[in-house]
Amino acid sequence: MPDILLINPNTTETMTAAMAAAAESRLAADSRILARTAADGPASIEGYVDEVYSVPPMLEIIRRETAYDAVVIACFDDTGVEAARCVSAAPVTGICQAACQVATLLADSFAIVTTLPRSVPALEQRVLSYGFERHCRVVTASDIPVLALEQGDEAVYQTLKASCQDSLQRHRAEAIVLGCAGMVSLQERLQNELGVPVIEGVSAAVAMMDALARLPLSTSRAGGYAAPAPKRYRGRFAADSP
Amino acid sequence: MPDILLINPNTTETMTAAMAAAAESRLAADSRILARTAADGPASIEGYVDEVYSVPPMLEIIRRETAYDAVVIACFDDTGVEAARCVSAAPVTGICQAACQVATLLADSFAIVTTLPRSVPALEQRVLSYGFERHCRVVTASDIPVLALEQGDEAVYQTLKASCQDSLQRHRAEAIVLGCAGMVSLQERLQNELGVPVIEGVSAAVAMMDALARLPLSTSRAGGYAAPAPKRYRGRFAADSP
Amino acid sequence: MPDILLINPNTTETMTAAMAAAAESRLAADSRILARTAADGPASIEGYVDEVYSVPPMLEIIRRETAYDAVVIACFDDTGVEAARCVSAAPVTGICQAACQVATLLADSFAIVTTLPRSVPALEQRVLSYGFERHCRVVTASDIPVLALEQGDEAVYQTLKASCQDSLQRHRAEAIVLGCAGMVSLQERLQNELGVPVIEGVSAAVAMMDALARLPLSTSRAGGYAAPAPKRYRGRFAADSP
Amino acid sequence: MPDILLINPNTTETMTAAMAAAAESRLAADSRILARTAADGPASIEGYVDEVYSVPPMLEIIRRETAYDAVVIACFDDTGVEAARCVSAAPVTGICQAACQVATLLADSFAIVTTLPRSVPALEQRVLSYGFERHCRVVTASDIPVLALEQGDEAVYQTLKASCQDSLQRHRAEAIVLGCAGMVSLQERLQNELGVPVIEGVSAAVAMMDALARLPLSTSRAGGYAAPAPKRYRGRFAADSP
Amino acid sequence: MPDILLINPNTTETMTAAMAAAAESRLAADSRILARTAADGPASIEGYVDEVYSVPPMLEIIRRETAYDAVVIACFDDTGVEAARCVSAAPVTGICQAACQVATLLADSFAIVTTLPRSVPALEQRVLSYGFERHCRVVTASDIPVLALEQGDEAVYQTLKASCQDSLQRHRAEAIVLGCAGMVSLQERLQNELGVPVIEGVSAAVAMMDALARLPLSTSRAGGYAAPAPKRYRGRFAADSP
Amino acid sequence: MPDILLINPNTTETMTAAMAAAAESRLAADSRILARTAADGPASIEGYVDEVYSVPPMLEIIRRETAYDAVVIACFDDTGVEAARCVSAAPVTGICQAACQVATLLADSFAIVTTLPRSVPALEQRVLSYGFERHCRVVTASDIPVLALEQGDEAVYQTLKASCQDSLQRHRAEAIVLGCAGMVSLQERLQNELGVPVIEGVSAAVAMMDALARLPLSTSRAGGYAAPAPKRYRGRFAADSP
Repeated sequence: MPDILLINPNTTETMTAAMAAAAESRLAADSRILARTAADGPASIEGYVDEVYSVPPMLEIIRRETAYDAVVIACFDDTGVEAARCVSAAPVTGICQAACQVATLLADSFAIVTTLPRSVPALEQRVLSYGFERHCRVVTASDIPVLALEQGDEAVYQTLKASCQDSLQRHRAEAIVLGCAGMVSLQERLQNELGVPVIEGVSAAVAMMDALARLPLSTSRAGGYAAPAPKRYRGRFAADSP
Repeated sequence: MPDILLINPNTTETMTAAMAAAAESRLAADSRILARTAADGPASIEGYVDEVYSVPPMLEIIRRETAYDAVVIACFDDTGVEAARCVSAAPVTGICQAACQVATLLADSFAIVTTLPRSVPALEQRVLSYGFERHCRVVTASDIPVLALEQGDEAVYQTLKASCQDSLQRHRAEAIVLGCAGMVSLQERLQNELGVPVIEGVSAAVAMMDALARLPLSTSRAGGYAAPAPKRYRGRFAADSP
Repeated sequence: MPDILLINPNTTETMTAAMAAAAESRLAADSRILARTAADGPASIEGYVDEVYSVPPMLEIIRRETAYDAVVIACFDDTGVEAARCVSAAPVTGICQAACQVATLLADSFAIVTTLPRSVPALEQRVLSYGFERHCRVVTASDIPVLALEQGDEAVYQTLKASCQDSLQRHRAEAIVLGCAGMVSLQERLQNELGVPVIEGVSAAVAMMDALARLPLSTSRAGGYAAPAPKRYRGRFAADSP
Repeated sequence: MPDILLINPNTTETMTAAMAAAAESRLAADSRILARTAADGPASIEGYVDEVYSVPPMLEIIRRETAYDAVVIACFDDTGVEAARCVSAAPVTGICQAACQVATLLADSFAIVTTLPRSVPALEQRVLSYGFERHCRVVTASDIPVLALEQGDEAVYQTLKASCQDSLQRHRAEAIVLGCAGMVSLQERLQNELGVPVIEGVSAAVAMMDALARLPLSTSRAGGYAAPAPKRYRGRFAADSP
Repeated sequence: MPDILLINPNTTETMTAAMAAAAESRLAADSRILARTAADGPASIEGYVDEVYSVPPMLEIIRRETAYDAVVIACFDDTGVEAARCVSAAPVTGICQAACQVATLLADSFAIVTTLPRSVPALEQRVLSYGFERHCRVVTASDIPVLALEQGDEAVYQTLKASCQDSLQRHRAEAIVLGCAGMVSLQERLQNELGVPVIEGVSAAVAMMDALARLPLSTSRAGGYAAPAPKRYRGRFAADSP
Repeated sequence: MPDILLINPNTTETMTAAMAAAAESRLAADSRILARTAADGPASIEGYVDEVYSVPPMLEIIRRETAYDAVVIACFDDTGVEAARCVSAAPVTGICQAACQVATLLADSFAIVTTLPRSVPALEQRVLSYGFERHCRVVTASDIPVLALEQGDEAVYQTLKASCQDSLQRHRAEAIVLGCAGMVSLQERLQNELGVPVIEGVSAAVAMMDALARLPLSTSRAGGYAAPAPKRYRGRFAADSP
């Protein structure tokens, strides 16, 4: 029965469609995905600056939608997940947090394989903040830009697979976490060829939030996720005032 | 469609029934709970020694059952969860790990309120091994024995509630995790009266495994969760040989 | 000779003026402060949502200014400091990071006393990410809103002082770090009355960046702080495209 | 004067004999080793499942013996050491904990070289729980099954030595800890050929417990190691009821 | 057969005598204590400055003595233990490291109760460097100067006992470690009255080194404990040149 | 206006001169460096034993000088920095702590490249005590003795550069921290050739203390850095009595 609001915080609608497709088959029969794409901002999120501009449009989606039971932020940086928890009426997860949680249910350790080197420190920071710094053996960059993943050519796949293999061997990881929402369609082939669990965050997050939405639980308002105090913002963000 | 094998590793069947009831309402319509009770061993699991004798009967259930899609070990010590991952064909979680994961999706920090002081160090060890040592502000004993929870009297409830309140105030937790499977029926009232999320591990674990069973993932065999090597055991454990 | 760009990422200009005044007396004779106030966004930054809307205006200031030798982001959340390092030609610090560094040069441990409870988890996260989680004994909320600090009345001072004393006694801290840019004018009196070092981040950060600007060093471009790849943003953030 | 109860929790009596021989020469003149072998269960302990079935027979030995001053559990997984502390009248150690303690008295860092990859995560967990995660640079599997160590052939020795050398060089360890009770006879040769301390846990644990037994100290009953509450177990474990 | 060199790095000979007496009864029959007192430096070691001046005389004792099998540095700061490992032909421990190791064999957690507040940070640093920061719940100052312990009056005992009780209750420790060599004579009474293990480092260290000296092991020379390179020192330390 | 007391705790005056020269150009116009060389002790500090004998002469300099506003201890081991904080009237830093702080303002991660392997564990200990164990990817020895750095030949430079490159590539560091005061003159060339920030501790520390001296702050006396209690030392350290 839950409706899952799946937000792609970048503006590339083909990515949103691929994500929704991947996640749909993982839902219970009575659940539904509401897939939304950011109206403004970067076409892909690669590093700290792109992150900054992807959050206001993402929060706007949450505020505008009125009927959903859980929220998934479908960027592996878990961009703005804390702010989303403050404004959303329903539970929120990012795909990095969900994927890491699933990984630790299936394996003692894992490696995250992401896109560009510039994205690595932000992911390491996320991993630390979630408490997975010991389970995550390494965050590796495959040197593939986000949008190159979209085109699905074989060389890109082989580069990514080589990064995964290196993480398994040199860092002795027991599973792979795909560190970019754009890798959603490669999970099955990689898992078959690598012989270890390959966790893809979008379907992991959607499935988990489908479950969480069935529990009588909501976000704590007792601390950092308190609803923002009413306050008028000035200038170009006036419309975003809480 | 998933069938969730819910194992109570102690021998108290009324606890199994209460757990199944609590979890049932949290499942998707097409899912089913297979609730099982340990045939041998302690009536309640309080400390390291009871844990030892609860694991072989739990593993026996996993081996004997033939059709399930996920396993929940319904003791907050997550007794034998690693061994269960080695022998189970399907993903496994304990209720402590599931409850802590759910807690970190809803709150920046939480407190675990459990039964007896002797259970605290084992839970602290679990919390550390899962990576939640910073999110979990404290593991507190309410000084209520497991089976006293069964009788549901008001004094027991008030003692537990006082422990929760102390954890929220002195340790500045933003949510409560109920640290014993026997507390399953107190979640709703506690949550209403405390005003913060109160996470009860049985329904959390069942819902999460219902979701995980829909994903194309299984336990990694690449490391610690490898299937046990065939080997004949001697003496009274001969029948348990892998 | 260095010019220090001091950015108040909230829109309250009286705070900017107070900060600049506090910092000016701490500079070498040949240095200069360029104090700037965010043009858009919240009047005070209290929690995750306010943070989101304060970063784009802050980055805009950095990009528009052409001549500076170091940047100080004068909000104790160190809002957007990583993105600022990507776009700034000169070194950047936030006042939280600078204050914590100064504190560890003067004391074995310290406590951060901030404004509202909702700000605590974000600061704890900062402290962890900087590596000061052992030196920082506690992050405490005094329950004073940011703008109440502006009015400088005695009751506010006494409340803050009581929070500091509690941190020193119960948590055995050896120094106090003032956890809000709005506390800039209270440093001297608090230090005199408490008898331990009281570190105020604005002057600490400005002095430190004055020093750093004299060293032949700039931000590493080898990882997370790489300059953002050229990319056209869509919609209302088009003008912010890197 | 102390009598040390040395328990081999697997059922291979030749291993027990080799251990007792190795440890005997390390004792003070007035001490004595009581070497005992598990009556039931696995012939070797390789991974989580074997561990489960080795603990009840080990606890049975502790309960049946009436006169001993300290207990050594001679499996490098420290199988059941916490439960043993609850039921034993005298202090207890496992050989992993003792070997790691000795290693940190002799070297700033060490590497553990064990048998099969499946044993590594459980040892990493032990190392973390004892607090040696920074001193232990790596836990490495030499890919030698436990019982192959028994046969003492040269190829096995060379494989083990190569694993040790790799740990010293790539991970910059200053000492080696032998991660299996079956390696007891290889300590001297390895130490001579590697040129760094090689710590073998059985003799280390026996010597340490010989010392500890002379101190006026016993296991704390104030927390996790409290004696188990009297309780009747059901079924095949009825005889084990505390 | 081992001879244990027990060094009091302060110049108070009555403390040396009390330590030797306490430790003597804990040795195997064939072992011997060689108790030595620093010739120069402070009468008690209270804080970082006293530590500095106690190390050269302690190293001088190690170099001058020619026949010993293990070394115990009997100051709870473990003053100069790393340098001692470089110059000593035999294994070395400080009493803090030995006491903490013994504590973790007997209890899941412990508290250190020491003398003055100024000594606390150095001990916290030791605890961290040994890896016991999770097992050690708190390092508490009883506010008793070292030499006041010497006089053995009842008020001093009661003050110390109150500090211990507070650590057990508020910090939920399961054992007490006495954090000063001068507390050697109070172990037995405190243990009887507190009802938990009370570990006194001098006898713990002497017993442990008695055991270690029987093992075929010596300090690693592969890293930080390498013998110092031959080098002429200038001025007043010329005689100390390695 | 601040006068910075720059102490070389080894006795090699050419190193002092090189340090003073490097730092001078980094100061504000109104600041001054007072460079002092230890009168007694080792010509270079390589390992724990040399450290011991370098601290008393360093403290003697601090006590003898009467007019200074900040102190820099110019040995990368930060030898005696805690004791110096107790006796100095003005703030104190070591060059390791200052360099690590500067590094974290410029890069997400860094590597320390030092001289001999024997120095590595002491530096790792410093890094941990300062809280930089996650930001510092590795401490590497280049195998160059301290005094060989003095002669400035090309082979030494190339060896050092190769160590830096290895740290950047294999350990994915984003910046280099030069781990010995003797490397002061190589900073510029290394930075140019490596293309990442290369932080040299002497100028970093002097610049930072120049800034800190302008703030109304002094060392906390509330804990470990309390002034030493008056006490007569015996024997050869009588003149050093506090």
